[in-house]
Amino acid sequence: MTELLQLPTSEDVKRAARQIAGVAHRTPVVTSRTVNARVGADVFFKCENFQRSGAFKFRGAYNSIAALTPAQQHRGVVTYSSGNHAQAIALAGQLLGVPTTIVMPSDAPAVKQAATRGYGGHVIEYDREHESREAIGRTLADDRGLTLIPPYDHGDVIAGQGTVALELIEDVGALDLLLTPCGGGGLLSGTALIAGDLTPQCRVIGVEPLAGNDATRSFQTRTLQTVHNPATVADGARTPSLGTLTFPLVMANVAGMTAVADRELLEAMFYLWERLKLIVEPTGALAAAAVLHGHMNGAIAAGARRIGVVLSGGNVDLSEIAHWRSQL
Amino acid sequence: MTELLQLPTSEDVKRAARQIAGVAHRTPVVTSRTVNARVGADVFFKCENFQRSGAFKFRGAYNSIAALTPAQQHRGVVTYSSGNHAQAIALAGQLLGVPTTIVMPSDAPAVKQAATRGYGGHVIEYDREHESREAIGRTLADDRGLTLIPPYDHGDVIAGQGTVALELIEDVGALDLLLTPCGGGGLLSGTALIAGDLTPQCRVIGVEPLAGNDATRSFQTRTLQTVHNPATVADGARTPSLGTLTFPLVMANVAGMTAVADRELLEAMFYLWERLKLIVEPTGALAAAAVLHGHMNGAIAAGARRIGVVLSGGNVDLSEIAHWRSQL
Repeated sequence: MTELLQLPTSEDVKRAARQIAGVAHRTPVVTSRTVNARVGADVFFKCENFQRSGAFKFRGAYNSIAALTPAQQHRGVVTYSSGNHAQAIALAGQLLGVPTTIVMPSDAPAVKQAATRGYGGHVIEYDREHESREAIGRTLADDRGLTLIPPYDHGDVIAGQGTVALELIEDVGALDLLLTPCGGGGLLSGTALIAGDLTPQCRVIGVEPLAGNDATRSFQTRTLQTVHNPATVADGARTPSLGTLTFPLVMANVAGMTAVADRELLEAMFYLWERLKLIVEPTGALAAAAVLHGHMNGAIAAGARRIGVVLSGGNVDLSEIAHWRSQL
Repeated sequence: MTELLQLPTSEDVKRAARQIAGVAHRTPVVTSRTVNARVGADVFFKCENFQRSGAFKFRGAYNSIAALTPAQQHRGVVTYSSGNHAQAIALAGQLLGVPTTIVMPSDAPAVKQAATRGYGGHVIEYDREHESREAIGRTLADDRGLTLIPPYDHGDVIAGQGTVALELIEDVGALDLLLTPCGGGGLLSGTALIAGDLTPQCRVIGVEPLAGNDATRSFQTRTLQTVHNPATVADGARTPSLGTLTFPLVMANVAGMTAVADRELLEAMFYLWERLKLIVEPTGALAAAAVLHGHMNGAIAAGARRIGVVLSGGNVDLSEIAHWRSQL
């Protein structure tokens, strides 16, 4: 497994951009006069809610599977995820003709299991309380010769996610600040890698839910911190910790971390719905919440005038709306 | 008032496009593999939910006010609307430095009154049960020398709305079919005018709510039919009838009319939210509902392969979601 400890570089992100070109959507960038007036800067929203399978995860999934040898592709891949990475791997596998096995908790929302199966993924359920998804994934990989593609701690996944920032900077030009949601840190790591290469003056900030602010604490203490199943509506950021690749990448390339409370997150999400007419899921609105509520580590005061914000996904279950609105 | 009976032409739509260029958004066109597979044709969604003030209405409002003489602009304009036309007139007036007076029912949603006032509109309330908004509007126009810009039955309004279709066809090329929501018929009339000019083979179809299908009946009987305050979630299409300009324009240029039930409309609206990640209001989803539920006058069977669909607006009040979902 030593290969996993080789950190990806900005060149890997550029290579990923060529790999996914014409397959992943080059998602639009949205601006709003109202937001700019509220924030006091020009804000550029990169709309990964419009990405294939509904989230940025498709980029890393496709880049990873496409990078495998023909023999590896023939045997297939395995991953574990209850969320957007599951659907992304299933869709990428379908497009590349690679069999995919997805380890999902048995209590995952039926709609997500259905979507994953809809893309041709072979779903294996596990008991979240008594079994380890990582162990199941590794066993499947070993027993069946499948290649494991974890949700974030993987060089090709990180490089693929970084293409979000590459496209944004190519499309709108240099930025002073770039905010991105942070769960396991794949998107944040990739973003920071390429932003630092393309626009060295750009400060990249990761945004977490307050209840699961392990990465913020890790960043501040320079020691990997963990959290167990944090209670937050940002289900994509309930990850226990940064990974063995993403932790050093975040330490090396990220300028700061910040966290937002669930109430701020939901306010921001509904603001994006009502004002920008964009469906963004709670986790996908983390970076927007930091900007709209001013949690930017003093960046505005320090003169940040051009701010990129990644809206990372839009997979919502509308039956949850009443629950979300009750928290406002 | 004889000037009102002069029907606008496709040249007026082209002139309107030059008038609003750089002020109105050239809204994006969205496509979806999933929708194409479901419909069996290539569907192009023109996203007027992203238009300034949240709906296509800004086009006609700005075009109308910009066409006034300096003296008329100095005196100001008046209109009546409880919905998107009110906000559009207020915003267009603000941008052009023209005072605007908006006659709104006293029971209009507070959020819509606030938005209209937020754009600088002077709101005059009236009692929907006992007063006529048209009479109040005309009295204000006569007494104060204001120019009345009604919501749809006005040449410059119709020409402005037609730019939606002009942009769509310019951006995606020839269409076999173009579906657009129909309330008073301003958007439909303008769309049919320019579509017939740019792509003569394109059949334009208007879509109404079933409970308020006066335009469909007018089209079929070739006689203007009316409806009184129809019970439909499509609040933008509760208009009593087509107008003196839009009725003849619809008869001359529209290929067909169709209607969708509220349940189909809400299903389509939530489909756009969940699958396309686009917030569209009920009225704004009328044409999409016709396409997704196959109410296209046999157009697919007749070989329509490229279908334009106008998503006309995205101004929703999220507090209504529970009510809407209860109707599914």
